[in-house]
Amino acid sequence: MHPSAHDRVRPLRWTGTALEVLDQRLLPDRCEYRRCTTAAEVAAAIAAMQVRGAPAIGIAAAYGVVLAACQRFREAPQTWRQAIEADFARLVRSRPTAVNLVWALERMRRVVLAAEGDPCPAALAEAERIHAEDVAANRRMGELGAEVIGDLSGILTHCNTGSLATGGFGTALGVIRTLWQRRPGFTVHATETRPWNQGARLTLWELEQDGIPATLIADSAAAFLMCQGRVQWVVVGADRIAANGDTANKIGTYALAVAARRHGVKLMVVAPTATIDWNTPHGGLIPIEERDPAELLPAYYQREDSLAGAWNPVFDVTPADLISAIVTEKGVVRPGRDALETLRG
Amino acid sequence: MHPSAHDRVRPLRWTGTALEVLDQRLLPDRCEYRRCTTAAEVAAAIAAMQVRGAPAIGIAAAYGVVLAACQRFREAPQTWRQAIEADFARLVRSRPTAVNLVWALERMRRVVLAAEGDPCPAALAEAERIHAEDVAANRRMGELGAEVIGDLSGILTHCNTGSLATGGFGTALGVIRTLWQRRPGFTVHATETRPWNQGARLTLWELEQDGIPATLIADSAAAFLMCQGRVQWVVVGADRIAANGDTANKIGTYALAVAARRHGVKLMVVAPTATIDWNTPHGGLIPIEERDPAELLPAYYQREDSLAGAWNPVFDVTPADLISAIVTEKGVVRPGRDALETLRG
Repeated sequence: MHPSAHDRVRPLRWTGTALEVLDQRLLPDRCEYRRCTTAAEVAAAIAAMQVRGAPAIGIAAAYGVVLAACQRFREAPQTWRQAIEADFARLVRSRPTAVNLVWALERMRRVVLAAEGDPCPAALAEAERIHAEDVAANRRMGELGAEVIGDLSGILTHCNTGSLATGGFGTALGVIRTLWQRRPGFTVHATETRPWNQGARLTLWELEQDGIPATLIADSAAAFLMCQGRVQWVVVGADRIAANGDTANKIGTYALAVAARRHGVKLMVVAPTATIDWNTPHGGLIPIEERDPAELLPAYYQREDSLAGAWNPVFDVTPADLISAIVTEKGVVRPGRDALETLRG
Repeated sequence: MHPSAHDRVRPLRWTGTALEVLDQRLLPDRCEYRRCTTAAEVAAAIAAMQVRGAPAIGIAAAYGVVLAACQRFREAPQTWRQAIEADFARLVRSRPTAVNLVWALERMRRVVLAAEGDPCPAALAEAERIHAEDVAANRRMGELGAEVIGDLSGILTHCNTGSLATGGFGTALGVIRTLWQRRPGFTVHATETRPWNQGARLTLWELEQDGIPATLIADSAAAFLMCQGRVQWVVVGADRIAANGDTANKIGTYALAVAARRHGVKLMVVAPTATIDWNTPHGGLIPIEERDPAELLPAYYQREDSLAGAWNPVFDVTPADLISAIVTEKGVVRPGRDALETLRG
């Protein structure tokens, strides 16, 4: 085992003058960082999915505000407060579903706009705080989630929710890491996670770095796996949790939830409270990003005159009643039995 | 519309001395035929999935027997009956799940072994009969299936079940074609069908040839699509139907069936009676092929020392109680209400 491997997997590096973003689209074959020196470049890196995962997106956006604050103040020490609004707008538009983005930008806005004189140092301090708090939250969720699960022979996770998707350690993958530290030997199944293959490319890679063996399955094989009794828990992250517990997460989560319910398999959602959107009463109101059909459609059909198209929603919504436990850094909620409200404030 | 396009899509061409197999792994980018002059080459083409789809596999194997019968008799006019057993064995081993393969080989064996003198002409006649009967069965199933479905706004199909998977026209895709001829305008959704992408590569291509627009979705998006009420029927083929109606079909069919049940979406299985295995009482006894993990696992993990592996089952089993209708050329069975037994003989 390599107990500190997850500390070496860093999706974001702050250099003092730039945010270096690990281009996750190239993993596991290549490990390359892209240098962002403006908020616009950070927004583009988020939109292009060089960095992805709701918590990591929030942290990246926070550093984007740092770059904006430093630059706008340097360019116009009197009027930077107006100028920076364009940066906030650009960052908030970069991806629509993950609410951590909005949450992080609101925190940054409060600190930046309260600054007297140069907002740059306060902005950096807040971004680093957001980052550090996320890592601490992940560690705590790892403990809480592992306690709820206890013993098991097989677990299934979807997409990537590890260090690459967060400030470090991971949400659902943090729970798996903690479980493995306590009692290794169960089987970790990871879905491929089409169309971006975050499971095949990123989750397998992170787990291998930690010395944890993992078994890849096609997304469509999950129900058959459950039918064979080989999995007791499905553990996933979240991009936005509505106030009633309905959860938007990577496309395919809902299908896993439906299959899990049929087979008596439990479903755990692991996410920091920053992922809870108190202003959205239920999942039907969560905006679901639909990305370019070209991400799914073979090149052959990307002609003007092709009759074939694609529907490429990036997330889906799992109703709270299919979720056995929502694990946050502030505690565990069992939808149906407990109200999410207890985590508020 | 191009009403005869499905006649132009031919997975198998008999030249008189060879079976030309369309290499479906290259579609839609390239349309290349591989020439098979021995039963061993046909078996290899089946195992490598150059030709796939339960009915097409059966027909290919039948032509494989023709090649074997001609060659073995030519080489040893007295003892060819012993020699040809190796060819039958090789062909029957080429893929384990589709029972059409066994069925076609049994038909061919009866005819070939009954031949007096050169078995070659009788073998060819029987292979051509199997082929022609399959096309006729598909036409009939298209009519019967379309009648059961009637009007709808959206349909979902999985894998490829068209001309490429059969002798021509298709099973589930034949139903969709017939529906479209009668009343075009509904939305045809096709799953990508990982890991071989038969939906993305083959189904979209066949439908485009016929002038039918299709919308590709990730396999994992099907449940979310159903949740939005955009689909009333899921229509699939089958690789083997047990005597009680349990159905082995492309991996992911079971997940679709589970999701369909939750959403009140109906599931139709379309397959010739040659796909029914009367000797297998229920689905738990159907052998499920597991293929090389390398078909799913990214190249990066295909190292000796990698901790990552993959589970790559090619089929799964859908219990009869999740199936609304099984459509065969001999009639429609509603499992639970009707016994499959009525189709026997």
